Amino acid sequence: MSSADFSPAAAALQRSAAELLMQRLDIFAGHTDQPGTITRLYLSRAHREAAATLTRWMAAAGMNAAIDPIGNVVGRYEGTEPNAPTLLIGSHIDTVRDAGRYDGNLGVLAGLTCVEEFAKAGKRFPFAIEVIAFGDEEGVRFPSALTGSRAMAGEFDSNVLDGCDESGVSLREALIAFGCDPLRIGAVARRPQDMIAYIELHIEQGPLLEASHAPIGVVTAISGANRFEVDVIGTAGHAGTTPMNMRADALTGAAEMILAIEALARATPTLVGTVGKIEAPTGSVNVVPGEARFTIDLRAPTDDARERASEVLAAELSMIADRRGLRMNLKQTYQAFATSCDARIVAALSRCVTRAGLDLQLLPSGAGHDAMAVARLCPIGMLFVRCAGGLSHSPAESITVEDASCALGVLMDFVSSLDERTFRRPEPYLDNVLARP
Amino acid sequence: MSSADFSPAAAALQRSAAELLMQRLDIFAGHTDQPGTITRLYLSRAHREAAATLTRWMAAAGMNAAIDPIGNVVGRYEGTEPNAPTLLIGSHIDTVRDAGRYDGNLGVLAGLTCVEEFAKAGKRFPFAIEVIAFGDEEGVRFPSALTGSRAMAGEFDSNVLDGCDESGVSLREALIAFGCDPLRIGAVARRPQDMIAYIELHIEQGPLLEASHAPIGVVTAISGANRFEVDVIGTAGHAGTTPMNMRADALTGAAEMILAIEALARATPTLVGTVGKIEAPTGSVNVVPGEARFTIDLRAPTDDARERASEVLAAELSMIADRRGLRMNLKQTYQAFATSCDARIVAALSRCVTRAGLDLQLLPSGAGHDAMAVARLCPIGMLFVRCAGGLSHSPAESITVEDASCALGVLMDFVSSLDERTFRRPEPYLDNVLARP
Repeated sequence: MSSADFSPAAAALQRSAAELLMQRLDIFAGHTDQPGTITRLYLSRAHREAAATLTRWMAAAGMNAAIDPIGNVVGRYEGTEPNAPTLLIGSHIDTVRDAGRYDGNLGVLAGLTCVEEFAKAGKRFPFAIEVIAFGDEEGVRFPSALTGSRAMAGEFDSNVLDGCDESGVSLREALIAFGCDPLRIGAVARRPQDMIAYIELHIEQGPLLEASHAPIGVVTAISGANRFEVDVIGTAGHAGTTPMNMRADALTGAAEMILAIEALARATPTLVGTVGKIEAPTGSVNVVPGEARFTIDLRAPTDDARERASEVLAAELSMIADRRGLRMNLKQTYQAFATSCDARIVAALSRCVTRAGLDLQLLPSGAGHDAMAVARLCPIGMLFVRCAGGLSHSPAESITVEDASCALGVLMDFVSSLDERTFRRPEPYLDNVLARP
Repeated sequence: MSSADFSPAAAALQRSAAELLMQRLDIFAGHTDQPGTITRLYLSRAHREAAATLTRWMAAAGMNAAIDPIGNVVGRYEGTEPNAPTLLIGSHIDTVRDAGRYDGNLGVLAGLTCVEEFAKAGKRFPFAIEVIAFGDEEGVRFPSALTGSRAMAGEFDSNVLDGCDESGVSLREALIAFGCDPLRIGAVARRPQDMIAYIELHIEQGPLLEASHAPIGVVTAISGANRFEVDVIGTAGHAGTTPMNMRADALTGAAEMILAIEALARATPTLVGTVGKIEAPTGSVNVVPGEARFTIDLRAPTDDARERASEVLAAELSMIADRRGLRMNLKQTYQAFATSCDARIVAALSRCVTRAGLDLQLLPSGAGHDAMAVARLCPIGMLFVRCAGGLSHSPAESITVEDASCALGVLMDFVSSLDERTFRRPEPYLDNVLARP
């Protein structure tokens, strides 16, 4: 069944491809809006230069490459038949400010390298491969995010065209300046029936693979998130004259709530809960705080787990407030649904990992990715690469060429061994995805 | 032994004196730097007007009244002999911004009313009475505080003359503009051998008397305070991708510390502990906090209790940090020693309270008072009056005329029944006070 080739010659080829990939990542890091850092915002000069470099590389690797009307770079490697269904491989090439060189870029350039190797070997498949470099995953420049992948999934909201960056330039104006025609954004949307799947390779952005001594991991789901703002109201009092048993201290109440959040997340497998911001707005060293506010970020790989945790937490916090004679306002400020990776893809990637002689690490993604948006179009899967210290969104982002080589090998094995007919069967996952409110 | 008079006629007189006291407090509240609020900062126009009103009232009540070189108003009611030793009754007439009308002013005007009643009845004692209106207890205008009472205790630090208010006016300039001669401040200091004691009547500024349904209480000590700043250092991380068991969350560590402070204070009689300020400086809703900072204010009526609690706390917080893999810096930012009320005065005031048919409430003062500074000069005692909701430093400060009447009655009984010879004995308390570092 397998098309994996584990000969010494194949291993050497894979290693040299990984070295080329790392070199390209280094060159790509030079496309920056702010010299001395990696800062490549959506539709900026650096983005245009990066897109031009990528288009050139894609063409040289044997793809038809172009920039679509929303600023995505798309390179197509035809299958054995014209108009064959398409396997998408991609990620994004925009970055946060002062970013690392791997977040996003790794998935795009790995896709490129992978196709290049197939082209060099003269391999064609019963499906086409498109390598996609989405233009805006991070959402740093404009108020919107996942702009390119949403457009491809047919879920572009034209209202975001009026959103402006810090300088007052609207997304519409920036697209035109980039050379795109905003009126043609509708054409970016693909038809589900033309798609096989979407695969995204990405650095983990977390410490799990490093802790497990595993170069790569197969993603099971992209966690959903609920965010809340909690306002705890007690009674301000003099720090010297208010006896302990007559206090309604908003901050000690908040402290107990913060520990309850931590305890719940620790006790619930796969749930993470974080209080990232806190303030006692009228606070003073000699005043019992009358008010405390904090945020909660709760994530879990399934919607059920996240919603159940949110309910339990709301009840627990309310109980703490009641017991302490405090009032509490809990306001939900954000909700993102969980996105399951397609079980067939997870299974196929897992087989490839095992075939490569690696321990299989299955893990959820706590961070968001373009794959969340593309999941509205077709089945998705993700492969994570170990990154030093779990760091991302930092110049300290780092991966090794050995790990990149493992990832490339698994990706190429996945493509080579993909039975695209599997994906022509009825697709119950799509009903799940599309049925959501 | 007792000179207390509980006849219906005496009760009616006491009630009418209390009504006059409340009217004077209302009139006095009109001396403000900011119309619509009560704001009477040290050496301001409103302070000068208030001092003039008070001087006039003192003279009318039979006292020799003057403003001393540090801006205190002093009214002297001679005893049966010239140059008799002196009983001081007082408090302060400066206020915080947007203050209530009772904090400070009550003690001064009650002293005035008390002497006025003695004068009307033709009563003289083997000691003189001086009613003192200190000019700066709150320390709102200049960087210094307790300026008037420190000068009287001979502990004026001439460096504070160079301290400036928000407008750049120095204390020296403000004193001169007020009509005082800064070169004569040394003359404000009294000789311990000329003093009997200092009595200060004050609103409680806390909720204990209200909760005990007691109009007045006898103060046992003015609590000392230790203040700390705590800096907790963990490791920032992605809220979605950092598993709970791999976090070094500075804020959950701080939350556990805050609850430990609360638990220690709850478990230790008379100790109060407050975390009034908190921040997670680099906080963001989706980031595990890498740092959290908060303040601690610990108060107890004895230095021993406060220092012991500080040591226990430092050890507990350090243990919490260690267990969570966090670093912690604990920095002491402030220390004030406790001031004991003189046992003879506490006993005498207690007898007067009981004689008035009231339940005896003994309580420490968690807030600071002029009495702390005067304790360096002579024995001190304080009487607290119940205030609505325990509120102070607020326009909502409120006391009843009935409670004012109880306080006046006890104060007059205390003065009338005072055996000044008791205070001529060796005074071991002074050694304690003066021996402090």
